[in-house]
Order: sequence, then structure tokens, then C-alpha cells
Amino acid sequence: MAARLLAAGHEVLLYNRTPGRLAPLLSAGAREAVSVAQAARSGGIVLSMLADDTALRSVTEGPGGLLATLPRGGIHIAMGTHGVEAIRALAAAHAAAGQILLAAPVLGRPEAVTAGRLGVIVGGNPAAVERCLPLLEALGRRVFRAGEDPGSASIIKLANNFLLACAIEAMGEAFALVRKGGVEASVFQDVLTDGLFACPAYGTYGRIIAEQAWDQVGFTTTLALKDIELVLGAGDASGVPMPSAGVCRERLHGAIAHGDGQRDWSAMALEQARLSGLA
Amino acid sequence: MAARLLAAGHEVLLYNRTPGRLAPLLSAGAREAVSVAQAARSGGIVLSMLADDTALRSVTEGPGGLLATLPRGGIHIAMGTHGVEAIRALAAAHAAAGQILLAAPVLGRPEAVTAGRLGVIVGGNPAAVERCLPLLEALGRRVFRAGEDPGSASIIKLANNFLLACAIEAMGEAFALVRKGGVEASVFQDVLTDGLFACPAYGTYGRIIAEQAWDQVGFTTTLALKDIELVLGAGDASGVPMPSAGVCRERLHGAIAHGDGQRDWSAMALEQARLSGLA
Amino acid sequence: MAARLLAAGHEVLLYNRTPGRLAPLLSAGAREAVSVAQAARSGGIVLSMLADDTALRSVTEGPGGLLATLPRGGIHIAMGTHGVEAIRALAAAHAAAGQILLAAPVLGRPEAVTAGRLGVIVGGNPAAVERCLPLLEALGRRVFRAGEDPGSASIIKLANNFLLACAIEAMGEAFALVRKGGVEASVFQDVLTDGLFACPAYGTYGRIIAEQAWDQVGFTTTLALKDIELVLGAGDASGVPMPSAGVCRERLHGAIAHGDGQRDWSAMALEQARLSGLA
Amino acid sequence: MAARLLAAGHEVLLYNRTPGRLAPLLSAGAREAVSVAQAARSGGIVLSMLADDTALRSVTEGPGGLLATLPRGGIHIAMGTHGVEAIRALAAAHAAAGQILLAAPVLGRPEAVTAGRLGVIVGGNPAAVERCLPLLEALGRRVFRAGEDPGSASIIKLANNFLLACAIEAMGEAFALVRKGGVEASVFQDVLTDGLFACPAYGTYGRIIAEQAWDQVGFTTTLALKDIELVLGAGDASGVPMPSAGVCRERLHGAIAHGDGQRDWSAMALEQARLSGLA
Repeated sequence: MAARLLAAGHEVLLYNRTPGRLAPLLSAGAREAVSVAQAARSGGIVLSMLADDTALRSVTEGPGGLLATLPRGGIHIAMGTHGVEAIRALAAAHAAAGQILLAAPVLGRPEAVTAGRLGVIVGGNPAAVERCLPLLEALGRRVFRAGEDPGSASIIKLANNFLLACAIEAMGEAFALVRKGGVEASVFQDVLTDGLFACPAYGTYGRIIAEQAWDQVGFTTTLALKDIELVLGAGDASGVPMPSAGVCRERLHGAIAHGDGQRDWSAMALEQARLSGLA
Repeated sequence: MAARLLAAGHEVLLYNRTPGRLAPLLSAGAREAVSVAQAARSGGIVLSMLADDTALRSVTEGPGGLLATLPRGGIHIAMGTHGVEAIRALAAAHAAAGQILLAAPVLGRPEAVTAGRLGVIVGGNPAAVERCLPLLEALGRRVFRAGEDPGSASIIKLANNFLLACAIEAMGEAFALVRKGGVEASVFQDVLTDGLFACPAYGTYGRIIAEQAWDQVGFTTTLALKDIELVLGAGDASGVPMPSAGVCRERLHGAIAHGDGQRDWSAMALEQARLSGLA
Repeated sequence: MAARLLAAGHEVLLYNRTPGRLAPLLSAGAREAVSVAQAARSGGIVLSMLADDTALRSVTEGPGGLLATLPRGGIHIAMGTHGVEAIRALAAAHAAAGQILLAAPVLGRPEAVTAGRLGVIVGGNPAAVERCLPLLEALGRRVFRAGEDPGSASIIKLANNFLLACAIEAMGEAFALVRKGGVEASVFQDVLTDGLFACPAYGTYGRIIAEQAWDQVGFTTTLALKDIELVLGAGDASGVPMPSAGVCRERLHGAIAHGDGQRDWSAMALEQARLSGLA
Repeated sequence: MAARLLAAGHEVLLYNRTPGRLAPLLSAGAREAVSVAQAARSGGIVLSMLADDTALRSVTEGPGGLLATLPRGGIHIAMGTHGVEAIRALAAAHAAAGQILLAAPVLGRPEAVTAGRLGVIVGGNPAAVERCLPLLEALGRRVFRAGEDPGSASIIKLANNFLLACAIEAMGEAFALVRKGGVEASVFQDVLTDGLFACPAYGTYGRIIAEQAWDQVGFTTTLALKDIELVLGAGDASGVPMPSAGVCRERLHGAIAHGDGQRDWSAMALEQARLSGLA
């Protein structure tokens, strides 16, 4: 993502919690900050891309965190996949400090990032969104406006990941059924993706499942479980029963118990194959 | 389907269990048979399109049924959505009578039929498939070969419907979540169908759900439950646990209990909305 | 069960589909029939105890079956665990032949039979029930009247087995949770069975699970799956969603896929342990 | 609980977050504290009974909280139903302050408390458990030792509540099935509780369901959902898939959406009846 910002002519100051990973970007023109605070103080807009809510808290709270160091009027764009309540609480904290939080989670596997094919879902103060639009447009193919509540962007992102989890789970069950019935997986994949399901979700993951290519890791089983827990948490908080998310969670737990935690989350279908006596 | 065969220049002799429904087709050049037996005896190829396995048995068994009246070497193409075991048992019965069963279920909502956009999945004896290819190609856009076992075509059709049921269920849960979170349904629908889920399954059903258009009936909730039961039956017969099918079944039962049995099966999302305090 | 009838002074004529298994009973005073027909013709009351609906049909249908050979006014007491629809259809067939069907499924693991601790649930014509009461009372500890519909007895038996399956499934999940939390299984078992759950279901199966004694087979995983399918079928027929039965079914399928089909059905908890990384 | 301690001759100083509720206990000999801090400072042992983890934090954290005000060597016995992680974190905080946390959740509906029929599950430092034993024994019928980790007591309590939720859910499904099959609910209840399920869980809740007595509130649907979420959270934290807990959660959400949040949690069976077309 930093490479795309640099390519679009933006000035980029980088901070990574794990040192030494920034060399290629530095040689492409980025500068390196020694702390979150230095990054926060040097400009009006800070983008964060963090693995989970705990990491988000670790860079926002405390004396050197964003809340304490970002100037008044500054904007924090949180681009990771975070819980709805975590985003809403952080938005309130930024507002109390005279700052603005935008949530702008992105859609796409890693290979979509460098190709500029990400979708960006942005939620938060409309004027701040306008100001940041050139950045967000440099990062992806299309920017979706979720509304004034940054939590809305989180909900849409989580609901989207949830739909994908359900599609993978359902494909896992369907492929197990056709394989046990003596049908070639590739024939079924062909039927699917020719018609009703002619889209990337079924094209990409149907192929991975048909070819049993769980070791091409785009998103790990362990991270997928985190997202499904955020989905279930959002459902609990708003009184929405989500039985399909429950099915995905059980499957992900089973896959992790069988040692697939660091494989691609399509290993949900491998776990289904095990339970069907196929693997 | 008969209209498409007539338009392609085929001779068509029609029999409908409910009399008086054939007038438009007769004026387009079809002839009417007074019984299954008359239809069976007059030509070498009989197409059946029946609502369920019971109806299929009612036209194949007994003294006037297809098994007793189709000439040796004749071909029965069963185009309805039937259970795997029912198709396999019928294939064996036809074989014992010197006849051939092909299973050729179709993919597409009613409006796809007249537009010639059906997919046809054919399974059974390869030579018979070749002989029937002109008919099947007249009916749809593409013919998929499932293999020599007619049951394979059933499995693929059922697995496809199952994936669609799961997608509708998941959309129902996801739309309930985003709506309760204050997000416009149309915004979420836009995000979905722009990217990962840019395909008819999510385009058509996402729109129906966003617009709450359950009364545009393409396929009823009651028929959907029948299909899901066939899926679960196939899973039981081959030892494949299908928890997502279980979720769909519970939802369909709930919708029927609330009076939605004759609505479009997208009413699964209406039932989800009820359970989420939205309807 | 025959031993108990002999002990109560009844005359018993036995027929077993597998020859050579009756020696101990013959030496205790029973006689052996060479066919179902011989057994049916020799007295007014026939008891059947069969593994499934297919076996029940095999001894009732056809020229030598009970429907053809039991005298008018004769009573068939079906004591196996059968599907509701199967029992109702058979009751109608017996009625058409001037005979009476009672359904009288029993409750209890094998060791309860010889100890006379079975419960017997009887459904069907009240006068016939009165006439058969001495037999039923000789077999068990208590006779429950389900009503005039023999299907009612089936429903009660299936619902009872379903509750037990759910209890075993829930114990499997709970024991996995406490074990992973560092709690001794025996401590948890002690808490359970001292209070709320001080009953045979939790006492017997909690002990088996705590001791991992799946090889003390009272009822196999494969037979349990058959019963759960009958439960789900009864739910489908009457429009009752049964998600807990769905959970049990998935678990039983998983256990069978892992090779536990002939173990005690408490192996549901072994399968849960596997999915929890404990086995 | 305070009444039982007074009756056993203990000195009791009471603090309630909502003022004015203590009159009957004060007239029975208890004294009233004006703050948590006063209660903490006046003696070596503090018992808390709080509705959830948030309430527990509110009386332990901050300048007037238990952590700041309980003397070194003092014991805090947390008797509410709390999350495993919450208890473990609090135990660590008490230890850092030179204090001791025991977790001692109790088992029993409200009517069991005054009758002295509670079970108490205690976890934590063995010497502290010994010292508090006279108090715990005054409160209930039996004290179970969970081990040195206070979290173990939480897990056992949560697993016990989970088993009860599953039993209620399963009864809801089973009673719907038998009722739709034409069987009297009371007959089924009689079969259950005579044999396998002759225990309070099925006796009490089976009767409530058979009599549809959801308005005899022992424990609300809303509180039950909180407990099931704690169970699922404990499962997530330790990698234990809990599909039955998922079923209970969906049911509780549905019941709450239908307005049953303040009814007895046996209203899970009412919600099941709705989905079965019975209510």
C-alpha cells in the first residue's frame, strides 16, 4: 500500500512495529519514523494497518500513542479489519482529543493490493473523507462510502468477509458431496463458475478447493477465526443471530485443532473432507 | 421448454398431468397425448419435468408408466431435480427393461428458460447423450457432461442449489447485521456485487433481499425445503456432514411456520429479519 | 426379552433371521419357528424387534410376511425403534388386512433388558393394548400409554433418544472445555451428577466420557445416526426445525468418518475431543 | 445468601449498589456499609455477587475499589458467574496487591438459595479455601473443590449452565415434535422423568415447558445469553468448537427479538414453538 502511495506522488513516512522490514520502500523514496509519535506529529494524516484490535489499542493508547500525539484536527485512517465496538470507542476517543477517526478497511487478497484492485470502504466525517480521497483512490480501484459512522465501514467489511467464509464453507460441503458421489471436482467447479457463481469468490476459492491448494496462503485460518469472532461479536451486540457464522467458527476451530492454523483459510474444505472420510 | 424445442424444429408430443394447460403450445405446433403411455410409445425419446420423486414414480411405475410402455432402446430424459438414490434406482429399472435413463436437470430461474439461458447437466450412457444432444442444446445455453452415472447429474444439480441456498442464508444474516448497524442495504449490496460476488447469485438475490421483494416468486420456500432435504439425504447416504444445509433447513422450516411457504425462497432472509427484531 | 417372557410363564415361539442364535432360549423352554409365517399363524400375538424400517418391511411384506400370514384379529407388536411414517403406514396396512398393529418401543441399554428395568411405550388400539398388557409388563418395569395412534409411541421413543443424543453431544463439548481449562474430568462429573443432572443419562454417559470408555458398546454410533435421521425425518414431516439434531448428525457423521462407527455412540465425545485438539 | 450467613452466626456488613434494598437483612442483624471501601476495610473476607464482568470490574478497579482498599492478606470471594479470562485477570491483580481471589460460583435457582440447597464450586489458594470453608458451607449444601486456579471454578460453572441450556433447547425441540405429532406434552414429560432423565434439570424445566410457564422467572433469557456468550468466549480462548452453544445462542437471540428477554430462559422452548407453527 505504501508503494502505491509513493507511486502516486505522495510523501510517505513509515513506522513498522517489527524493525528492518522497510528497506524496499525506503529505497523507493519513503522515509522511516522511529516511533508512532514521530509519525503522528509529522503530518496531518496517519494511516494504520494492524492485525487486530489489540494491536490497534497498542498504537493509539498510552503516552506515545496516536491519541496523545496526533495534532488537533489530525486524521487517523484505520485500514485494518477491526471490531465495530472497538472502532466506535476509538472514534469517540479521537473526537475527545479533537482528532478524527476514519475507518477504511480494504477488500482483496494480497495480490490485489499491488495491482491496485483493492476496494476501500470508508466511514466517518464527510469533510475528512473528502480530504483523504486522493489517498484512498491511490490505494485501490474504488472507494465505497459507508456513512458518517466509522463503525459502518467495519460492519460492511466484516459482513463481506463473513459472506466469503460462508461461501468457502458451503463449497467445502458441496465438493465433499460431489466427490463422494463419484463426480470430478473440476466438472463441478466448471458448472458453478459458468453460471450463478461466475465471480471471484467462487472462481478463486473453488479452484483452490478443487486443486487442494491450501498452501497458497492468502489469508490464514487463524486470522479468519478472528474475523468470524468479530462478526459473531457484532451480531451479539446488535441482537442478530448468525448460525452460519457459528458453522464457520466450528469448522475453523476444527481445522486449527488438526494443525491447519497457518494454512490458507480454504483449509476449511480440507477439514470438511476429513469429516467426510476423504482426507 | 417445449416452446424452445418447437422453435428449434423438433416434433413435440405433450402430456400434462393437469389437463387444459397446454393451449398456447398446441397453437404453436405441439400435439397433445392423452396418456403417458401414448407419449412413450410414439417416439424414442421422452422428456419428463416433474416436481418431485413421488411424481416421477407416478409416471414411471404401474401398467401405464414409462417403464412398461417405452419401447426397448427408448430414452427417458428426467429433467426435474430428483434425489440421487431415486435416479439411480430408476436407471436400474430402465436398464432392466432395455431402456436408457438420462438425468438432465437444468439450472436457471423460470425467466432463464424462455430466454434460452438454462444450463443443462446431463448424466448417463454416452451414446444416448450424443443422440439427445440436439434436444438438450435447443433447451439451453450450455450442456455439461456429468459422467456415465445419471446420479452424478443429480448430485451436481443438488450441490448447486445447496450453494445457492447457503448464499441466500448468508446474505440474510449479513443484511440483518448491516441494517441493524445503521447501514443502507443498497450500499452493502453495491460493495458485494462490485467485487468478490459480482455474479448472478448475489446480484439477483442480493437485490431481492435489499428490496424485500419476496413476492417475486421464482422458486418457492416449500420447494426449496424439498431440495435441501434431498441434499441432506444425499449427504447421509454418502457420509458427508452438511451443517450449512442444516442451517438452511431450520430457516426454511421457520419461514414456512410463519406463513411464507408460497413466497420466493429468498424469504429465508425475511425469516432472519424476524429473528433479528427487524420485521 | 424372550427370556423374561418365558420366566413369566408365557409360551414363546421364536424366529430369528440369522439361524443358530437361539440355543440358550430353546433350552429355557422356547420353541423355534422355521419362518415368519409359521410364527404368525401359530398364535394371535406376534412381537417383532427389528433393527430398522427396512427389516420391518422385510418381515411384513410379501407372500410369507406378517400382513399375509397373521390371522384376522391378530396383533403385531412392533418393539423396534421405527420411523413415524413407517409405523403409520404399517398400521394402515394391518388394519386393511383385519389385523392390529401396536407400536411398543422400549427404553434402556441392553443390561436393562435382562434386569427387567425397561420402560415400554405402547401406542395403538386400547382394547388390544389391554389384551397385551401382561406381556408388556413382563418385559419391563413400567408401561407408558402413548395414545391410540401407534405413531405416537414412535415419536416419544425417537424424542427420548434425541434428548439423550443432545445430552451426550453437550457433555462432549463441556468435557472438552473443562479439560482444556485444566479441570479434572472426574471433578466436573461429580458436580454434574450431584445436582441438576443426578440421573442415569448423565451418570452413565458422563462416566463413560470421563473414563473415555467408548469400547463398552451399548448402542453403536451407526445405529445412533439411523435414529437421528428418523428424528430429523419426523421433524421434516411435521414442520419442526431441529437444529440440535442437526448438530448431533454432523458429529455422528464425523465420528463414523474417523472409524468409530461400531463404537458406543458416546464416541461423539471422542470426535469432539479430536476437533478440540485433545485426542 | 446474607440471611443464611446471619443464621449461621456470622457478622455481616452489607453493601448494595442500589440503595434501600437491605431493610429486611438489617432488621435480621446485618449492618450496612456506605461504600465498597468501607466493606473492604472492615474485615478480612469480602464476598461479591455481581451480575456480570462489567459490574465486577466496577467494584474492584479505581481508587475506592477492592484492589485499592482490601487489606494485604485479605480474601475476595467472587460468587457471581464470570468469564474465565476476567477471573484469571482479577486473580493476578489481587495477587499483585498482596490479596487473594477465590472464585466460588453457585449452582441453583433463587428458591434453592434460601433453602440452603445451593452447590458451591470453589477455586483458588487452598489455605484460603480452608479459611473460608465455614462461610461457604453456611451458604449451601455442598462445596466442590475445583483446584488452585480460580478460573477452574468459572469453567465448571459455565459448563454446567451450558449443559442446562442445551437440555432446555433439546426439550424445546422434542416437545414441539411430540406436540405436532399429537402426543400430550404431559405424557412425554412423564416418560422422560421416570427414567433416563429423572433429575431436577428435566423435572423442573420439562414441567415449565409442558405447562408453558415462562413467566415463572428463575433466570432471564437476557442473562442466559450473557452466560452462553461467556461459554463461547471460553471455547474460543481454548480452541474448543461448541456448536450446541451456537444453537442455544441463536435461539436466545430469536426469543429476545420476539420480546421474551425478561421471561424465564425456558422461553427458548416458546421460541421453538413459534418456529414450529405452534405459538
